[in-house]
Amino acid sequence: MSNQDLVLLDQTSGSADCCPGLLTAPLDGDQAAELAKVFKALGDPVRLRLLSMIASRAGGEVCVCDLTPAFDLSQPTVSHHLKLLRQAGLIDCERRGTWVYYWLVPEMTDRLAAILTRPTGAPAPDGAAS
Amino acid sequence: MSNQDLVLLDQTSGSADCCPGLLTAPLDGDQAAELAKVFKALGDPVRLRLLSMIASRAGGEVCVCDLTPAFDLSQPTVSHHLKLLRQAGLIDCERRGTWVYYWLVPEMTDRLAAILTRPTGAPAPDGAAS
Repeated sequence: MSNQDLVLLDQTSGSADCCPGLLTAPLDGDQAAELAKVFKALGDPVRLRLLSMIASRAGGEVCVCDLTPAFDLSQPTVSHHLKLLRQAGLIDCERRGTWVYYWLVPEMTDRLAAILTRPTGAPAPDGAAS
Repeated sequence: MSNQDLVLLDQTSGSADCCPGLLTAPLDGDQAAELAKVFKALGDPVRLRLLSMIASRAGGEVCVCDLTPAFDLSQPTVSHHLKLLRQAGLIDCERRGTWVYYWLVPEMTDRLAAILTRPTGAPAPDGAAS
């Protein structure tokens, strides 16, 4: 089986199996470095609140003008946090006139959820075979 | 309905709904601060590799003596990273004789997977009602 076949299998085996599994096999250095960037972006309370505000908004997108007032921070600071979320692939945005509008990239949160999900039938930590 | 009722509902509505949903409602400051600590612990390549080595180990636990050789780092440095993962609630450990043994706390990764999972029937970002 060629490497290309393996890639194709990966793409068709469902979202829960699509990614290097954090819980199923040791990550290599490149996988860990890439994934750490995304988790690092989530490792800040302001960014988590921004992401939750964006992700939970009915209509799917939020004007930066509706995000900034929720924080005791300057607009440049809020914009910097939004930039880090965007660089991590968690949100995307578009400028329309005066304002920038943000929305969730659900493929990235789906991916994170999948790699944090235990494989089906995984043994309990204290009940596994040696 | 009182706040207490809401808490009780939260506790009985199943693992996928057990936690403040990052994608379903804006997090408050306390929720965001608590969650950010866990994501911050994951926001480092060495810690992600350690976690994946521990989580994927058949038998469910790993001796620190088997973790350290995989890294070009001193044992105190590896132990420091392990301590941060433990403080975040992602792993736990026990000393037996000379060595410390580590294992995954799957309840924490389950919780993270749940809060990153889109609610069933969630509208696509570009197809939602305004």
